[in-house]
Amino acid sequence: MVQTLITILDWFGLCVFSVTGALVASRKRMDIVGFALLGSVTGIGGGTIRDVLLGIQPVFWIKEPATLLICVIVSCITFFTAHILHHRYRSLLWFDAIGLALFAVTGAGSALAHNVNPMIAIAMGVATATFGGIIRDILGGESPIILRQQIYITAALMGSAVFVALSSFHASQDIAVVSGFVTAFSLRAAALYWGLSLPRYHPRDAQDDE
Amino acid sequence: MVQTLITILDWFGLCVFSVTGALVASRKRMDIVGFALLGSVTGIGGGTIRDVLLGIQPVFWIKEPATLLICVIVSCITFFTAHILHHRYRSLLWFDAIGLALFAVTGAGSALAHNVNPMIAIAMGVATATFGGIIRDILGGESPIILRQQIYITAALMGSAVFVALSSFHASQDIAVVSGFVTAFSLRAAALYWGLSLPRYHPRDAQDDE
Amino acid sequence: MVQTLITILDWFGLCVFSVTGALVASRKRMDIVGFALLGSVTGIGGGTIRDVLLGIQPVFWIKEPATLLICVIVSCITFFTAHILHHRYRSLLWFDAIGLALFAVTGAGSALAHNVNPMIAIAMGVATATFGGIIRDILGGESPIILRQQIYITAALMGSAVFVALSSFHASQDIAVVSGFVTAFSLRAAALYWGLSLPRYHPRDAQDDE
Repeated sequence: MVQTLITILDWFGLCVFSVTGALVASRKRMDIVGFALLGSVTGIGGGTIRDVLLGIQPVFWIKEPATLLICVIVSCITFFTAHILHHRYRSLLWFDAIGLALFAVTGAGSALAHNVNPMIAIAMGVATATFGGIIRDILGGESPIILRQQIYITAALMGSAVFVALSSFHASQDIAVVSGFVTAFSLRAAALYWGLSLPRYHPRDAQDDE
Repeated sequence: MVQTLITILDWFGLCVFSVTGALVASRKRMDIVGFALLGSVTGIGGGTIRDVLLGIQPVFWIKEPATLLICVIVSCITFFTAHILHHRYRSLLWFDAIGLALFAVTGAGSALAHNVNPMIAIAMGVATATFGGIIRDILGGESPIILRQQIYITAALMGSAVFVALSSFHASQDIAVVSGFVTAFSLRAAALYWGLSLPRYHPRDAQDDE
Repeated sequence: MVQTLITILDWFGLCVFSVTGALVASRKRMDIVGFALLGSVTGIGGGTIRDVLLGIQPVFWIKEPATLLICVIVSCITFFTAHILHHRYRSLLWFDAIGLALFAVTGAGSALAHNVNPMIAIAMGVATATFGGIIRDILGGESPIILRQQIYITAALMGSAVFVALSSFHASQDIAVVSGFVTAFSLRAAALYWGLSLPRYHPRDAQDDE
């Protein structure tokens, strides 16, 4: 039942990350096959890295080809509908925020199911949540989203940590999943809406910066 | 016999992709060890990702070190001979086209030999064909070739799909291999020669593009 | 006893590479969580790629979470102390040189422990030594260090080759480890100090360079 909830949220995460990949493809004026590649790689990228690191073989979308198919379909739909969105980059950031929060929880959940240390489960949540977007930005020739000012990696970290902590203390899994998602999404949403950021490193001596 | 044909084409693909990596190294004025690294990574990159995703361990060039050696040798030869080519970037694109067509077929062939779903086999063909070049461009600090205007990913996709379709319908494997290669190469060659491209996404409302 | 030496050097390599990742984070004015991510990925990146290619599962930091923890701690300390360094980029290059020399030896040592061909062991030494820095530069939006003029990949290659050659001829492992490290570090240090480089490719015909 909990596993079902995680599976459903995982599929939803694949879809929203595929949309963000397809939106980057739209910014680069790619053709429909480019949309399918960039959307799919973004959708399945984080989970693929998680599976490879954990030693799950073959990776999930080879075992369940439907997950790849849904990414391709969502990307192709975006090719024909992206112009409907009034602000494509703004939309991309919000879809990315939903995917980030979903994968922070489901990535940590998959790792816990493989009996890893809680700290490693949190790290896998962060990796699953952030690497799809990192691959998208590198392949699309964009500046990686992790370099932007607002809270981003921190949101994935906190969501993943809340989920793992509640799971470790035997909370109801539904509560753990929902709490983790709400923590990650609300942090990222607040950062996007109010432009919040954590204190950043600032050099005391500007000239040594090159 | 068919496996022999695929093996031979795979070696040829390693060589031509190594040349493209070495040509990027020549554009960046690297030294001979840089040529060897960038050439080898480009040659073995696509197949390495294919093996990791399919769970083949260790990856092919650790089992057959001669494949890595040939990439190093070809890259070093390119260090001393690249100036003979009249137009190095143009040559790079044509070598890349041959490698793309070869790996689209051999990548899908390796995947089919592991009994995966036909759609996954096609995806592995595309991944094997395109990721060597993607890694080359990222390490070499070039704009990724997948972002260029002409038909590129589509050529790999069509070649891979023709090969998998003919194989699934029990066509002679020689015919499947040759048809897949000819499909991919002629599409890419036509795109390079006449500058063909598929219809690209174009935003209806320019100001929402940032 | 030798394995102990390699393990200790490996931990030291994790630390110095984490510092270089954190210093790139400081150049990009990231927050403390960004330091932790970029520092950790740089520290564990090379060894992770080595493990995935060799088929060691799961990767080393999932088996030994303390290795990830030390990277996070070192990165966070760097967040509060980086301003003490007078020339941060210069320091980054020197820490990177130490890490490069350490991982060239320990990467090849891990590969030899898996009974691979000597040429593959050398290649794994080079990959372990260079890929952490490559991932750091790509995620941090910097030009990859392998494209810089001075001897870099060559230092890793020579250190790794000296270690593998001495190991193959049954030299005392301490001597093999120390000789490999000294070879790699002194080559890279000389290159940094005197600006040494190998002869680079130079086009005979400038106009064909684009």
